[in-house]
Amino acid sequence: MHCYTQMQSAKRGIITEEMRKAAAHEGIEAESLRCMLAEGVTVIPANKNHKSLEPKAIGGMLKTKINVNLGISKDSSSQNEELEKAIGAIELGADAIMDLSTSGDTRAFRTKLTQMSTAMIGSVPIYDALVFHKKPLKEINAKDWLDVVKMHAMDGIDFVTIHAGLNRQIAQKLKKEKNRITNIVSRGGSLMFAWMEMTGNENPFYEYFDELLEICREFDVTISLGDACRPGSTHDASDACQIEELITLGELTKRAWEKDVQVIVEGPGHMSIDQIEANMKIQKTLCHGAPFYVLGPLVTDVAPGYDHVTSAIGGAIAAWHGAAFLCYVTPAEHLRLPTYDDMKEGIMASKIAAHAADIAKKIPNAANWDNDMSKARQKVDWERMFSLAIDPQKAKRYRAESMPKSEDTCSMCGEFCSMRNMNKILNGESVDINVI
Amino acid sequence: MHCYTQMQSAKRGIITEEMRKAAAHEGIEAESLRCMLAEGVTVIPANKNHKSLEPKAIGGMLKTKINVNLGISKDSSSQNEELEKAIGAIELGADAIMDLSTSGDTRAFRTKLTQMSTAMIGSVPIYDALVFHKKPLKEINAKDWLDVVKMHAMDGIDFVTIHAGLNRQIAQKLKKEKNRITNIVSRGGSLMFAWMEMTGNENPFYEYFDELLEICREFDVTISLGDACRPGSTHDASDACQIEELITLGELTKRAWEKDVQVIVEGPGHMSIDQIEANMKIQKTLCHGAPFYVLGPLVTDVAPGYDHVTSAIGGAIAAWHGAAFLCYVTPAEHLRLPTYDDMKEGIMASKIAAHAADIAKKIPNAANWDNDMSKARQKVDWERMFSLAIDPQKAKRYRAESMPKSEDTCSMCGEFCSMRNMNKILNGESVDINVI
Repeated sequence: MHCYTQMQSAKRGIITEEMRKAAAHEGIEAESLRCMLAEGVTVIPANKNHKSLEPKAIGGMLKTKINVNLGISKDSSSQNEELEKAIGAIELGADAIMDLSTSGDTRAFRTKLTQMSTAMIGSVPIYDALVFHKKPLKEINAKDWLDVVKMHAMDGIDFVTIHAGLNRQIAQKLKKEKNRITNIVSRGGSLMFAWMEMTGNENPFYEYFDELLEICREFDVTISLGDACRPGSTHDASDACQIEELITLGELTKRAWEKDVQVIVEGPGHMSIDQIEANMKIQKTLCHGAPFYVLGPLVTDVAPGYDHVTSAIGGAIAAWHGAAFLCYVTPAEHLRLPTYDDMKEGIMASKIAAHAADIAKKIPNAANWDNDMSKARQKVDWERMFSLAIDPQKAKRYRAESMPKSEDTCSMCGEFCSMRNMNKILNGESVDINVI
Repeated sequence: MHCYTQMQSAKRGIITEEMRKAAAHEGIEAESLRCMLAEGVTVIPANKNHKSLEPKAIGGMLKTKINVNLGISKDSSSQNEELEKAIGAIELGADAIMDLSTSGDTRAFRTKLTQMSTAMIGSVPIYDALVFHKKPLKEINAKDWLDVVKMHAMDGIDFVTIHAGLNRQIAQKLKKEKNRITNIVSRGGSLMFAWMEMTGNENPFYEYFDELLEICREFDVTISLGDACRPGSTHDASDACQIEELITLGELTKRAWEKDVQVIVEGPGHMSIDQIEANMKIQKTLCHGAPFYVLGPLVTDVAPGYDHVTSAIGGAIAAWHGAAFLCYVTPAEHLRLPTYDDMKEGIMASKIAAHAADIAKKIPNAANWDNDMSKARQKVDWERMFSLAIDPQKAKRYRAESMPKSEDTCSMCGEFCSMRNMNKILNGESVDINVI
């Protein structure tokens, strides 16, 4: 029996090869994953044309996944540099890569990515429309927008961000909204808003959502419903525009599921800590349990240069309360394109947020990693600590830069090392410290 | 009427100069601060011999404060380098500095600190006992331990960490405890435990707590009750040893307050996200609302090299739920002594955590900073963004390293900048993007 999508197979009781592999990665039964897929609370973004993919599932009850953004643009480095970043990102543990290319030979770059990547590949087709159609924004028509999605689907993209929730009604509401400081901060959202204003047309992804579903269904492309009205400042968080768009995204989720198309929903954004839990719960009810993909949230606006930290705080809290998928944020956010080193900082911060949430959520076996590290610490076993570290290279380099006078400790505490002294005294040895 | 301490003045209805200054810093009425001081829910660590101090208050309903650790040791840099760090820390916004020196001319260093620092200065007298008394650990006697505290008090130290809660009963419990992975990880706690084991004596700070209070009362030294049994791994968090010690710290808090001595209580440590709120609440009841000073908490154990991030996550959540004071953690934690750059990373991460919590706690005016930044972003006003950034230097440097082809944006999005495009379209201008 031919099935178009993972969701269709799941609904029909079929366990696919992708489900088997993704379940093995989680350490859960394939049948239990199949149930989650059938319900829509979990997705396996796996385009039929993405042959190199090692499939993984995204869902609030599974290990939290992280995404890395990169791509070629007028201001960015070469295709090769961005491909090197992609390879590095996968090595560093990215579960997904979003290709946000906006200039140059975007199709060649995209195709190279889907030919080599074991990680899921996402894209925002809106960004590519101007490159592909080579005409001014306002001359692009509804069919043009959909054609770009079709091309990305054919090219093996596993999930596409589609800002279908920004319909005319919400756009008009946003236009009249006087309380927002930062208006629309979604790149794709602002482009679509401008297009709608200039042409007077309805959002084509909203108007022709069924046609969009046909494309996604054919290649099993997961739709990532973009949140054009996400808050771009803590001030704007959880306002009526944001929540009204989310209601629409919930309606579109249902329509996609009826056609067996997999869906994830995108979320904030900038948001103070006290609002995160409520947002995760509201998304769950309004979007019927579809996996939540959060872009942060950044818990303060004042830290350009450190937004990997502001988003690690927000992402950890969000994932703990049910977000399934974290979009990484680098120290370069709000300032410039990230370098390779920025990317690495961003990946590490996101992985920390994801893992901290997994421990708190009691994801099976998540805490084993921490317990192994703690046992190595207690034994002052440096090689074991390095091998378990989230970034063994950095840990080794840091220690090597300042070796202690006592070899069995580190220069932070030296002979005052509590591990060393507790091990001694509990072994019946005397403890003394040479302070000279 | 002569008063020994800020608490005594507060109880007698007297508003001191220190209260006036600290209240002005918070933007609250001095009388309201006085009430909090009288109750013990807020402290102003201000040693009478620390003349250069700009007094600040620490309390869960006030702006969250941050502390920086430094000091001279066998493995560390010179006095001058550590003094430069101290000056840098104050410039970068540290509210307090703890001098954790363990070797060399510690008294000269300490005195220089209290002569020049506008920030509060804390210390752990236990660390200094071996240097001061020049005898092996087991030959130090109860009077020796107290003499070191007295010296620190005379030298102008504003708050001292005292591990008075680790009495014989808890030490025995800990010895029998088989479930802990990391035992005692407090440096001072492990030293005191070793001393108690080797001498068979009761913890002198517990046994002679009244004598300790006399010293602290005379100079108005705030006692920071150290948590010897704090969890050193997420595995050990919230166990019986930790909570039993906290109960003892609560009893000692009451005894200190009876003598008008100000108290803060130290807390975890390593702890998964889901336990933080409960710990903040339990500390509040067990310690009668005394300000909570948290050393993290680090929300995962696996990230040496990135523990400024793991502790920013934990610290933000802790402060949101009532912690008053965050001890910074640097990327060098668990690996080596921090450099100046590590210190800066640690301070920034702590300041972010503190401020994110202040917004969430609705500390008066905390969100104004964010709103000003968001307004500058919306206007794409780079100079204003830099001046408001938590680290203007880094923000400027990042942008300068990769200037965009369109001057009014940044290279992250270039002409796709949502701020630029929304401003244009809402002004009635056409939006187009040159993708070549």
